[in-house]
Amino acid sequence: MTPEWIAADCTADHLRLWAMGSEGIFARAEAPVGADPLATLHALAAPWLTEGRQIEVIASGLAPVTALRIVPCTPVATAVPVPSDDSSLSLRLVPGLRQDRPADLTQGAEVRIAGALRVLGDFDGVICLPGLTTVWAHLSAGEVVSFQSFATGSLLAALTGDIAGPLETAAFTESLATTRARPERLAAQIASLRAESLLSGLSATTLRSRATGLFIGAELTAARPYWLGQRVVLAGEGSEPYRLALAAEGVQAETLPEEACILAGLALLHTAG
Amino acid sequence: MTPEWIAADCTADHLRLWAMGSEGIFARAEAPVGADPLATLHALAAPWLTEGRQIEVIASGLAPVTALRIVPCTPVATAVPVPSDDSSLSLRLVPGLRQDRPADLTQGAEVRIAGALRVLGDFDGVICLPGLTTVWAHLSAGEVVSFQSFATGSLLAALTGDIAGPLETAAFTESLATTRARPERLAAQIASLRAESLLSGLSATTLRSRATGLFIGAELTAARPYWLGQRVVLAGEGSEPYRLALAAEGVQAETLPEEACILAGLALLHTAG
Repeated sequence: MTPEWIAADCTADHLRLWAMGSEGIFARAEAPVGADPLATLHALAAPWLTEGRQIEVIASGLAPVTALRIVPCTPVATAVPVPSDDSSLSLRLVPGLRQDRPADLTQGAEVRIAGALRVLGDFDGVICLPGLTTVWAHLSAGEVVSFQSFATGSLLAALTGDIAGPLETAAFTESLATTRARPERLAAQIASLRAESLLSGLSATTLRSRATGLFIGAELTAARPYWLGQRVVLAGEGSEPYRLALAAEGVQAETLPEEACILAGLALLHTAG
Repeated sequence: MTPEWIAADCTADHLRLWAMGSEGIFARAEAPVGADPLATLHALAAPWLTEGRQIEVIASGLAPVTALRIVPCTPVATAVPVPSDDSSLSLRLVPGLRQDRPADLTQGAEVRIAGALRVLGDFDGVICLPGLTTVWAHLSAGEVVSFQSFATGSLLAALTGDIAGPLETAAFTESLATTRARPERLAAQIASLRAESLLSGLSATTLRSRATGLFIGAELTAARPYWLGQRVVLAGEGSEPYRLALAAEGVQAETLPEEACILAGLALLHTAG
């Protein structure tokens, strides 16, 4: 069965493809990005292609930084065609967003935001996308007004080896409170946590829960203008610690599944093409 | 030529050995730690050994956490013998220090502190040892009163790939001021720096200088009780950014070479043995 079109999303570590048919998703493929993301994309798409027919591929997270669109603007507008000798697919890349002050850019967040807006309908507020880079974006009248990225996930992954997995709520919320009150003590608290782990043999889950709490506590302090008194929507697999952390501040965030946001965002450009 | 004794120091990534004679150092050896640090140590020492003679090896950074000594105490006291079938060397390990509140431990800093005290003579004040883990220790009447570790170097290495190399002073001091004033914005500033690097193609040196400034700015805010109004001595290869950062606060720190501190500290236990 040949897909009607293919959706693709590239993050810092993984490339995911979805074969889309009239009933929605009918197949998924995933691989590490590798040195040549476009070659990986072609290899993953190959089993779904048919000779003599050209399938459209809409991809996020792969456009060059020269194509970035400057905020304030709608999250997505058009996708940039990539010239290719391969007649079986027609690849178009979705440009990210760019902000000059503070310097920032998105590489995939723009598609998730567009998809979340599509799912939410009329929405003014803040969308937060947790990940290796977490992005907070302020939306008004269908446009991204401003955004702010945090390297929280990268720092956490560098220190604990992974950022997924279950959390111990008590360990998480206690650590969260520590850096919400004294964010400048992050590097000291991380060193102290390591020492305690060596001295008392903390479990991997306790260690991850406490480290996650310390990092997100500091992030919430810095991201305060993005959630204080705002309607907040979270989209992404790493949303749960953010939901807990925001609840501790009295903010009841809604959550959306990441895959639905990615596909709704990319579909906007497929149907527009 | 057979050494009188061998000094050894193990950090998170490297093991170093010094063959010590009557005139001081007469040979050095170095290797990555590997999975079995004691096997690496034996392999590095082998060329210096003579059959029928037992050479004493005093090593820091290798004692088990069960041997830690609780502060306040002198930085080093005795070294723990390691039983061995190898009659050509007699290995003794220097225990680290332990602090319960906040939970912290040293794995090699204690020897550097002991050596620095030996070099400085009568010294009350603060010794700061920059590294993958930076340790600040408050010394009074020959004892470590309290200490605080920071994971600054590990975080920086995880993000920029290396922590050594030259700094651009202007880029460093500007970034330093940013997180000294708003330490909670560290993760946001790191993300912004990454974005700027992608957008403007910053050189590796500029990127490292600015990232180092951001991390040390946040560390200085948290370590304030350790330098404000104190006599501060820096020992270690990564001292330069700390010296600059302290100078910006009006603190003129003295610097000591790390190797001299390590060897003076280990020698205390050799001569005592």
